[in-house]
Amino acid sequence: MASGNATERLVDAAALERFVAEVFERAGAPRDEAERVADALVSADARGMTSHGVMRVPMYMKKVRAGGFKVGTKGKILRETASIILLDGEDGLGQVITWRAMEEAIRKARDAGAGIVGVLRSNHFGEGAYYALHAIKNDMIGLLTTNGSSNTPAHGGRTMVAGNLPLTVGVPTDKELPILLDMAMCASSKGKIAYAAKKGERIPPGWAVDSNGQPTDDPQKVLDGGWILPIGGYKGWGLILILDILSGVLTGARLGLEITDLFTGEPSSPQGLGHFVMAINVEAFMPVAEFKRRMDARIRSIKQSELLPGVTEILMPGERELKLERERRKNGIPLSVNVLDQIAVVAKELGVAAKLP
Amino acid sequence: MASGNATERLVDAAALERFVAEVFERAGAPRDEAERVADALVSADARGMTSHGVMRVPMYMKKVRAGGFKVGTKGKILRETASIILLDGEDGLGQVITWRAMEEAIRKARDAGAGIVGVLRSNHFGEGAYYALHAIKNDMIGLLTTNGSSNTPAHGGRTMVAGNLPLTVGVPTDKELPILLDMAMCASSKGKIAYAAKKGERIPPGWAVDSNGQPTDDPQKVLDGGWILPIGGYKGWGLILILDILSGVLTGARLGLEITDLFTGEPSSPQGLGHFVMAINVEAFMPVAEFKRRMDARIRSIKQSELLPGVTEILMPGERELKLERERRKNGIPLSVNVLDQIAVVAKELGVAAKLP
Repeated sequence: MASGNATERLVDAAALERFVAEVFERAGAPRDEAERVADALVSADARGMTSHGVMRVPMYMKKVRAGGFKVGTKGKILRETASIILLDGEDGLGQVITWRAMEEAIRKARDAGAGIVGVLRSNHFGEGAYYALHAIKNDMIGLLTTNGSSNTPAHGGRTMVAGNLPLTVGVPTDKELPILLDMAMCASSKGKIAYAAKKGERIPPGWAVDSNGQPTDDPQKVLDGGWILPIGGYKGWGLILILDILSGVLTGARLGLEITDLFTGEPSSPQGLGHFVMAINVEAFMPVAEFKRRMDARIRSIKQSELLPGVTEILMPGERELKLERERRKNGIPLSVNVLDQIAVVAKELGVAAKLP
Repeated sequence: MASGNATERLVDAAALERFVAEVFERAGAPRDEAERVADALVSADARGMTSHGVMRVPMYMKKVRAGGFKVGTKGKILRETASIILLDGEDGLGQVITWRAMEEAIRKARDAGAGIVGVLRSNHFGEGAYYALHAIKNDMIGLLTTNGSSNTPAHGGRTMVAGNLPLTVGVPTDKELPILLDMAMCASSKGKIAYAAKKGERIPPGWAVDSNGQPTDDPQKVLDGGWILPIGGYKGWGLILILDILSGVLTGARLGLEITDLFTGEPSSPQGLGHFVMAINVEAFMPVAEFKRRMDARIRSIKQSELLPGVTEILMPGERELKLERERRKNGIPLSVNVLDQIAVVAKELGVAAKLP
């Protein structure tokens, strides 16, 4: 199928998932691991989270083939209490390890009310929403974060000491779409800055600074040694630090500059990431149906807000992405022809017989 | 003792605490409840959190005497699992109920690894750091939030639907000061805006909007029907929504406009607040000493950052407040003579024999 844009092609989600799973299987992953990664990547594309989608297949394959991402492990439980698990990811595929972590958190939460799984020795897990949705499907609140390679200075500093860390929270609802907050703690992303630079556009105040740490609206100056700022300055930096502690310090994972960057690091080197994965069983607080009714009522009361000029609707966190997913799973996912070509090259090298859908 | 500023007086922390406790006892609070509230309020003043300090005594007394804050209850457990408690605050003193909640969370975390206490029917708890420090003293990570009366619109809206909600996280350390993040999710506070207006100063971009929802650097326009923005726009709004769900929807507390405002509401009406109070036992993940060493090392690596021009030191969240507390507990707390006079009036009405220190 061809979309209107010649640089993009509409691809069927299910067919793409089968193809990507075959690529991972050919690279040595057991069938269930291959399917897990494929599902996670294609789901991200379906929800418009392109940067966590199948465009990462060539990079992931590079890591798998060099040994930085290990196939054939779902991690190993190191410690366990009634509501806590410490999981050694054994340098496995981030999606496989993090799915396992959320499964264990849900299991703990079912019995104890809350479950927290700390993960060390893991790799890039992609889109956090994928795991939070699993908690939602189990009538639980899911919450997770991860540490990451250093691209953000402390407030007042210029040394890169922590990542632009994400927080993902999913909350089940009744008739309304679930709440699915999935955000990084900086005001923007490298992708958005690069896009603005390419288009010759200015960036909003508060997004980023130049190489001297001075505020700038010139995206090129940000790319030339500047950096993106945490939201709310010292506040966002404080939130990053907490996420870094929960996912990294508490789990025994690598910290700061010890972490191998996905892009610039040795392909053979595992990233050594830490994650913090939590499930809260709403049933411990009130009947699930009552909680869902309360959520729906809260969402509706907010959506009835008087709107600012130019705004047509109050959107809840995740609403845009979940609606997009519904549409794309039906009509296909628009993917860059360039990305598809790169995946085809990797697939051919691995001896995948099937053609890209 | 007189401080350099004639409108302020240096007051001994311990003496002030005894006096405030007597005020609450005279108003009918059992001795232990009176001491809890007094300790919480004076601690906030010691850490420079004036807006959550003894300046609230007259307002609290108004609520206590009218029945909006009830004395003589530490709340009642409604539901309990291995790691969760749902606590009915029975409209008690916010400080008493929230202290109880953190105590129960710590107890749960000691046994299960993690403890979450959801609270409903509570009142203003003041400074979140007070309870997080209790977790820290028990070698645990403490995390709490609360919902609050509506002063913030949803992203894209202009109806006030949620509070400028706080998140407090405390993390134990070894030789370094503990991490004590205690922040609200909006870019500024009403106090700071009013102060800028009084001084005739502009406010930074991104802080607030006027009554039409348009960005403004004029603090007076914010006071005249405008509002303060969440950090990072839709991101901070998303964080507020999650805090609102955890503290309010999940606990069965009042939501949004149902909540009685501390200042504008009927003094006889309980606020009906909900809180989310969590403790994580670091011992469940690794030996406490190892965790504390990792925390110290992480803090030191961050503090070694190259600094931006004009910056003399990287400060960790809570560092300024904890150092201030140490100094003020030794040398006295500077308090507004006006505030002290108001407290003296209330104390006299209640028949407190002692004089303000």
